[in-house]
Amino acid sequence: MHVTSEQRLDDGVLERAFTLGEIPGILWTPASASASAPVPLILLGHPTLGLRRMYPRLAGRARHAAADGFATATIELPGCGDRPRWAAAEQARADLRRAMEADGPVDDEIIDALVLPLVEKSVPEWQTALDALLSLPEIGGPVGYSGGIISFGVRLAVVEPRIVAATLFAGSLVPRAMYEEARRVTIPLHVLLQWDDEGNDRQAALDLFDAFGSEEKSLHAHMGGHTGVPPYAGDAAAHFFTRHLK
Amino acid sequence: MHVTSEQRLDDGVLERAFTLGEIPGILWTPASASASAPVPLILLGHPTLGLRRMYPRLAGRARHAAADGFATATIELPGCGDRPRWAAAEQARADLRRAMEADGPVDDEIIDALVLPLVEKSVPEWQTALDALLSLPEIGGPVGYSGGIISFGVRLAVVEPRIVAATLFAGSLVPRAMYEEARRVTIPLHVLLQWDDEGNDRQAALDLFDAFGSEEKSLHAHMGGHTGVPPYAGDAAAHFFTRHLK
Repeated sequence: MHVTSEQRLDDGVLERAFTLGEIPGILWTPASASASAPVPLILLGHPTLGLRRMYPRLAGRARHAAADGFATATIELPGCGDRPRWAAAEQARADLRRAMEADGPVDDEIIDALVLPLVEKSVPEWQTALDALLSLPEIGGPVGYSGGIISFGVRLAVVEPRIVAATLFAGSLVPRAMYEEARRVTIPLHVLLQWDDEGNDRQAALDLFDAFGSEEKSLHAHMGGHTGVPPYAGDAAAHFFTRHLK
Repeated sequence: MHVTSEQRLDDGVLERAFTLGEIPGILWTPASASASAPVPLILLGHPTLGLRRMYPRLAGRARHAAADGFATATIELPGCGDRPRWAAAEQARADLRRAMEADGPVDDEIIDALVLPLVEKSVPEWQTALDALLSLPEIGGPVGYSGGIISFGVRLAVVEPRIVAATLFAGSLVPRAMYEEARRVTIPLHVLLQWDDEGNDRQAALDLFDAFGSEEKSLHAHMGGHTGVPPYAGDAAAHFFTRHLK
């Protein structure tokens, strides 16, 4: 893990851009974090739009979490942002775009081709990042995972025992295989659903929530479209992490 | 409104038992409430088990609300507790018991006979109680409604403009007519659903949530049966009232 730049934000949060091999990432730590007072960590998931474009929203989530005493970190997804294009993913995205423009249902094959390789490739990268982040003296545990592509969160929750709680954002384009995988998730979950999400099949999201094997899971559904999550929903997610990571 | 007894609880909350004509009720006010610093009010709904039996849970909710700066009040439902029995309601309850023991579906006629007259009779009583409560100098507005029989909450939200926000507990045994009435509810809603509620049809609860006309409505679904609402769900409902009544 190589820190490429660092800056202190106006609220005292230390923001460090880093690379991990060829993968860019960002780490935010609250002013209070130190070797003698290490803080829990939340991994910030995000869609495939690239870190640069997602930066304002990620930094907002990071500052909110820092105010609650959490470090946060994220890395670029494969084939996104400044990382080398990835022919198969480009193809799958083009297929998806065509299917959506045709206004028909999106075939399972397209969803599988789009999501499964991304999950396969990226989850080990996040685990490597976790190794590096947890070796920093100012970062302790436990670790939470927040948001981003829900299939990615599901896989990470299943394979990574250091993650003890997750907030997930119910999205569609979930491969069928993920409903089975969801049954193997056992950590506490806080699942957000936008009730009128234009790109989201509500029943599919409810089915996925139902499938999770976790004994503690809550569904928080709010009105509005995909990007209309109300600010107080963020507060509730913050309370969830405070309950489970502190 | 005639105060029949009063006591100061150990956390400073003033608990007053009262009667309103023949209807018994209870009012809780935080220690801070006074004529020069009147507090908002939350009406506490409850099932048909009678105030005496419900007292421990009601008092717990009242103390929680008082800690957030709210007065709370409740009155006995018609035909319940010490109020005169009510032949039609007794009959409807016996019919329901028989239908549930037979493990078959409960006919719409039974649900209508059970719920609709109760709503018709009790809502005006709660409005009369509201008149009396709001005339007390230490109680200001705005007014919220919390829990209890969901059809009752729906009707109250539709007909009583002084109620500006409500938390509802999704239950079954909802008359079909209530789904139409739900469309006329426009105040902010915070709806709790127990995902594995043994006495509750989950899809019916989701349909009712979908029907509400409110621009701001949130569904909070938690694991477990009817009485298994987790403690942190109460905290989220408290944040909802703080957002809307303060």
